[in-house]
Amino acid sequence: MSKIFLTDTTLRDGSHTVSHQFTLEDAAQIAGGLEAAGIDIIEIGHGDGLIGSTINYGFGRHDDFSLISAAASQLTKSKLAVLLLPGIGTVEALKMAQKAGAKAVRIATHVTEADMGEEHVKAAKDMGLFVVGFLMMAHMTDAERLTEEALKFESYGADVVYATDSGGAMLPEDVFEKISSLKKNLKIPVGHHAHNNLGLAVSNSLTAIEAGATYIDGCLSGLGAGAGNTPTESLIAVLNKMGYEHNGDLYKAIDASEKILIPSLNNKGLKVNSQLDAMILGYAGVYSSFLLHARRAGQRFGVDVRDILMEAGRRKAVGGQEDWLIEIAVELANQKSK
Amino acid sequence: MSKIFLTDTTLRDGSHTVSHQFTLEDAAQIAGGLEAAGIDIIEIGHGDGLIGSTINYGFGRHDDFSLISAAASQLTKSKLAVLLLPGIGTVEALKMAQKAGAKAVRIATHVTEADMGEEHVKAAKDMGLFVVGFLMMAHMTDAERLTEEALKFESYGADVVYATDSGGAMLPEDVFEKISSLKKNLKIPVGHHAHNNLGLAVSNSLTAIEAGATYIDGCLSGLGAGAGNTPTESLIAVLNKMGYEHNGDLYKAIDASEKILIPSLNNKGLKVNSQLDAMILGYAGVYSSFLLHARRAGQRFGVDVRDILMEAGRRKAVGGQEDWLIEIAVELANQKSK
Repeated sequence: MSKIFLTDTTLRDGSHTVSHQFTLEDAAQIAGGLEAAGIDIIEIGHGDGLIGSTINYGFGRHDDFSLISAAASQLTKSKLAVLLLPGIGTVEALKMAQKAGAKAVRIATHVTEADMGEEHVKAAKDMGLFVVGFLMMAHMTDAERLTEEALKFESYGADVVYATDSGGAMLPEDVFEKISSLKKNLKIPVGHHAHNNLGLAVSNSLTAIEAGATYIDGCLSGLGAGAGNTPTESLIAVLNKMGYEHNGDLYKAIDASEKILIPSLNNKGLKVNSQLDAMILGYAGVYSSFLLHARRAGQRFGVDVRDILMEAGRRKAVGGQEDWLIEIAVELANQKSK
Repeated sequence: MSKIFLTDTTLRDGSHTVSHQFTLEDAAQIAGGLEAAGIDIIEIGHGDGLIGSTINYGFGRHDDFSLISAAASQLTKSKLAVLLLPGIGTVEALKMAQKAGAKAVRIATHVTEADMGEEHVKAAKDMGLFVVGFLMMAHMTDAERLTEEALKFESYGADVVYATDSGGAMLPEDVFEKISSLKKNLKIPVGHHAHNNLGLAVSNSLTAIEAGATYIDGCLSGLGAGAGNTPTESLIAVLNKMGYEHNGDLYKAIDASEKILIPSLNNKGLKVNSQLDAMILGYAGVYSSFLLHARRAGQRFGVDVRDILMEAGRRKAVGGQEDWLIEIAVELANQKSK
């Protein structure tokens, strides 16, 4: 199995969810949290890409370059990326983005219009950036045409090409067919960006991986335009359960969501409840009634509630065995103090 | 492809989401909406099943029998079902449920303890009920053991057996292996009940169908314990897109969610936003920017916004072609008036 590279786009596609009102502090803190969570590429900027902050697409609270600088100040490992839609973004803006700290760019065109991106891909490569060709609304054409367009991006010098399900409209079989065709015909790696309109974002990401994709997108807590993207935390959880190699850290991704992103959303008046307790219960494979007991035991003995639940899952604890949770917490506390 | 039978459990598993506070009016209206949406089996009662309304599991606003009566008064086609956990529910209670209008029962045991349900399955069959064996926490054992337990339910006389992913912990490969084994070894139909902890509920339902399951559960708007169940509307949308035969009606399921369930949740102080606009966009395969324009055109010409979006999807309209939406609305209005 090939290693999977994670791109988180909370600060770009997720920016739609907050009507592009992320603050510079949000940018810095969320980027820092994502780097701690092992995310390979962090995308940032207006939801509609570089220079998207207009009367047409909605003004952002800050310009892209300030956001990039704020995030870049926190990063030493993760690659900071911007999105560029030719026709909205320009090569000039890309140069400014690079100056502010961007190391990568995703050049996004409609699925049948890769040629719109030729000039931008070539310029970005000349600038020494890591370049992703991003073919949007990939459900609107067939595998053959998609592959032709992807080959164009490859010929321009792109490092990776994505089949992007902007509309959240792709069925598993469609993802499999298209990604397989890209994988078969391209020399460069293939990526997939899912939206959750039909509730298929996580599984379409898995299907893409199965078909050969090695670059996968997510957003913390499933933020993103419309129904949102693949939740980064769920993606990491499922990749872990399936044994895929990647750089993501589940607990730290959850921390970035619960301690940084969600409080910031709530401060903006967007009442978002964390779904991550439920996620960890499914990850551990334990009864939901365990949560409260595990929390109490964790507090009492100074142990991470997630470690307690994971161990309960390994021991196949069932309803009625809530006392095991205390036993487990004590054991974990003892191990820690050794 | 075999026909798929839909069970909606908004009024039972979804009851957890409202701390078992559904009113009699909720029960009547939601059941009516589900029948209109072509749901084959409607499950109702306390989240923990018959007689679950206790200090241990949380008192319900109404007893199960009043809820059953209220729902039954609205139904002529859909089968009203109750859940019975041996040890909590009793045969006596089941008789009262039948008197109140229940036509089916799901006898639920831990995945390795089907024998706990023998007496109840036999009694329910003697009473003339449709009986489902419901093997909970199916992730906790292997396919072989699950199959042994399912064969017990079959031998007691059950009409259907479910592999129930109570913890939302099953991966696609696990669902496929287990449902395939049940399908291969049982004479009676096989069902699957998913939870969305890992974001896999819709796709695990599809995987189950692919492996041979013909009974699938959902809840309107993805209600249900923990991370919730498979959203019934998404399930219907995806089954439609994939060409499966079933009795569900997508628009009417959306109506039941948007016009009945969600207002009732909001009245209870649970702020729930409909995700169904985004779902329809994915179903139609159109840009999210179309929604506002389609809504305006729909109001102006008296056409269902969903029909406009679907037609735009069929015509493969892309961004910038928002004027097509008015054209489509006019055409649909003309067709209607003929």
